[in-house]
Amino acid sequence: MQQSLLVALAEIVGADRVLTDAESLAHYGKDWTRMIEPAPSAIVFPGSAEEVQALVKLANEHKFAVVPSGGRTGLSGGAVASQGEVVIAFDRMNQILDFSAVDRQVVCQPGVVTEQLQQFAEDKGLFYPVDFASSGSSQLGGNVATNAGGIKVIRYGLTRDWVMGMKVVTGTGEMLTLNQGLVKNATGYDLRHLFIGSEGTLGMIVELTMGLAAAPKDPTVLVLGLESMEASMSVLQTFQDNMPITAFEFFSEKALGHVMEEKGLPRPFETATDYYALIEFENTGEAAMDAAMAVFEKCMEEGWVLDGTMSQSTSQAENLWRLREDISETISKFTPYKNDISVQVSQVPAFLKEVDEVVSAQYPDFEIIWFGHIGDGNVHLNILKPDDLDKDTFFKQCNEVSKDVFAAVKRFKGSVSAEHGVGLLKKPYLAYSRSEAEIACMKQLKQVFDPANVLNPGKIFDQDQKM
Amino acid sequence: MQQSLLVALAEIVGADRVLTDAESLAHYGKDWTRMIEPAPSAIVFPGSAEEVQALVKLANEHKFAVVPSGGRTGLSGGAVASQGEVVIAFDRMNQILDFSAVDRQVVCQPGVVTEQLQQFAEDKGLFYPVDFASSGSSQLGGNVATNAGGIKVIRYGLTRDWVMGMKVVTGTGEMLTLNQGLVKNATGYDLRHLFIGSEGTLGMIVELTMGLAAAPKDPTVLVLGLESMEASMSVLQTFQDNMPITAFEFFSEKALGHVMEEKGLPRPFETATDYYALIEFENTGEAAMDAAMAVFEKCMEEGWVLDGTMSQSTSQAENLWRLREDISETISKFTPYKNDISVQVSQVPAFLKEVDEVVSAQYPDFEIIWFGHIGDGNVHLNILKPDDLDKDTFFKQCNEVSKDVFAAVKRFKGSVSAEHGVGLLKKPYLAYSRSEAEIACMKQLKQVFDPANVLNPGKIFDQDQKM
Repeated sequence: MQQSLLVALAEIVGADRVLTDAESLAHYGKDWTRMIEPAPSAIVFPGSAEEVQALVKLANEHKFAVVPSGGRTGLSGGAVASQGEVVIAFDRMNQILDFSAVDRQVVCQPGVVTEQLQQFAEDKGLFYPVDFASSGSSQLGGNVATNAGGIKVIRYGLTRDWVMGMKVVTGTGEMLTLNQGLVKNATGYDLRHLFIGSEGTLGMIVELTMGLAAAPKDPTVLVLGLESMEASMSVLQTFQDNMPITAFEFFSEKALGHVMEEKGLPRPFETATDYYALIEFENTGEAAMDAAMAVFEKCMEEGWVLDGTMSQSTSQAENLWRLREDISETISKFTPYKNDISVQVSQVPAFLKEVDEVVSAQYPDFEIIWFGHIGDGNVHLNILKPDDLDKDTFFKQCNEVSKDVFAAVKRFKGSVSAEHGVGLLKKPYLAYSRSEAEIACMKQLKQVFDPANVLNPGKIFDQDQKM
Repeated sequence: MQQSLLVALAEIVGADRVLTDAESLAHYGKDWTRMIEPAPSAIVFPGSAEEVQALVKLANEHKFAVVPSGGRTGLSGGAVASQGEVVIAFDRMNQILDFSAVDRQVVCQPGVVTEQLQQFAEDKGLFYPVDFASSGSSQLGGNVATNAGGIKVIRYGLTRDWVMGMKVVTGTGEMLTLNQGLVKNATGYDLRHLFIGSEGTLGMIVELTMGLAAAPKDPTVLVLGLESMEASMSVLQTFQDNMPITAFEFFSEKALGHVMEEKGLPRPFETATDYYALIEFENTGEAAMDAAMAVFEKCMEEGWVLDGTMSQSTSQAENLWRLREDISETISKFTPYKNDISVQVSQVPAFLKEVDEVVSAQYPDFEIIWFGHIGDGNVHLNILKPDDLDKDTFFKQCNEVSKDVFAAVKRFKGSVSAEHGVGLLKKPYLAYSRSEAEIACMKQLKQVFDPANVLNPGKIFDQDQKM
């Protein structure tokens, strides 16, 4: 990178906030995706919305690209800088600026860590309900840029549903202040929603007004052994018809086996079944417990559920959650090939069956671990590397399988990326979920907000008109 | 309109589905806005998405404008055709096409009436929760095009939150199929949200997949006499912190007085206060009732509430709702000047006070009736015409006051149209809620999806580049 440009960057953010050493470039140039070699030109740490605005204006002037960097926990390479970009790291912009108890709204800088907001909410007797494995390091700006989902979507929705206001710097360096904490605002196109999930390609989010929910009461967990995956649909429907639930997750016996072995946890109940459902609800009182027991019994009577257990305390609930939440960490030693996909909820059983068949037909030795958020149709496909196969061959074979998996996704009208975004990794497969016409529209929208293509270029899709 | 064009329209929809008689033009050329004279060229009734697509393509070819027409219950002139446009009326596209109990989703044509969907949901043991005064005639396509809100937003959100999928014909005649019923889909820009609330200026909605909720249990209503408008904030917060509520409405003593007189209803309790809150919650069992009673008592002890009553039956709950819901009809005989505005919830008391002062300072004789959805910051300002003032003078004076009201809205960072859209009526005031930069973005988006400006032109804003 030209020395003069580094000086210009330093003039905006301060000299000690421009890093170009190899270690920093490697660290800040990538996210949790490990497949792509980072190669940024510089890392800058702005301290204010205005500094971000100045950086984007400079990028336009000098025709360099910028990549936003939050907690770098992305799994699709959305925050990877592999083309000499300047990384804008939001770590310094990590303050909670304002709070209104009546509005249940918090004004945050984009670098606020998810857990920080969760803790802040808890301290106020409230609840920030978007929760997922990387809450301890992911940042709000990144959550919004990818419309993060997680484990409570069935009850609380996605990150999108909690963004009450936003300040964003577009690709031309224009600062937009969108919907300042209003619930109802029918004054034309809601631009907010365009920036949510746009992975930093349309604007840099520089301030967020987030909504909070009431604190949940005594989360209680059921783990149920399902007669079959098909039966999960009847179980889900019966629960939803009879009581509010806050989570409806699932995992396979294979997943459970690995977690029990690795974590030394006991089997939750005697009967082993191919699939398990984990259901969480709020124990708001006797009526809620009675309803849960009645539905549980109904599911047993109908033969949908063969066995099950219900937590009697917070610690029991937490232990049951571990059976689901520890899967990802447990199987990491098997170098899994991960895929985050979704279909309509009702399609999950048929879709799982089809993917199982597709994979086994080609590679009968591959062990498939299924788990995920059945209540919102989001399943995590994990293929474990056989011990005798080298890593490169394994991933090459998995990539072959991927195409067949995505073809199945397309047949089921599903999504090739349920909650991890497109970034670089899913870019070649975007057309499996979005039509040519839709992709053409997206490119035109990019052109509107970032005509010089300086914002995170090459993510989601390649812009036809290069800068 | 040229005869050849009428023939072309008839070729698409059938000869008997093109109307040009004066009565039809007057009827289908306007919505509930009565200020603008309708003057469409023709009314057409397509029967399918493909026919709508053909109509939009014809509009591009022959450079005529089209106006979508649903239930025509809009209050901002969004569906008024006053410039020789062709009105596309969706009345024939009124079928419910598909239903999935597990997904809780209904595929609807855009001409399905809100109440029709509500009834369908009820028949399935479910609930379509977006509800408002015009549910009996408003159509889903129009609801989505204006992102309709209503009385249950505090619990169930806006129409936006229930759109799980959409087919839409853009201004170029391209048919986009967006998000086919998926809950999680992180594959680039969510175009769905751009069409929601765009008032037919970006696309014609030709199919909708709507989500449904669980049926609510035993809706129970409290009406509370507030010590002051400020106290409503403490009451709202205390309820929300302690129990889920489904509505938090308010109305003034003046509003109540008119309803009691007109409808022969008794005062809900002895004490008269300046403002009343109406709170609805689900009686899910003893715990819910205990919580409600405890909060009620707390509000009395704190002095926020001076008196109140709680419904003991469905019919009592319905009667209490009438005190709020009958206001609009009751005051219609006073030729009210209506304004639908919103601010952040916490700003409502100060905002009301300021607007009261603004109006009274100029016109001390004007009677102001306040009511609305305090739980989401949406207040309906109604100014009643004094008997001795003629209609024209009254509306002229109100228009003068409007500017001051909108100036207050701007100071409070509120919205000049909370839930009625912009259409033609609020167009001159758009800049009070949206910045110049935002409006410029909107115009560019319009250019992307409707380059020839054939879709509902002149609504929300005037496109700089005319067709």
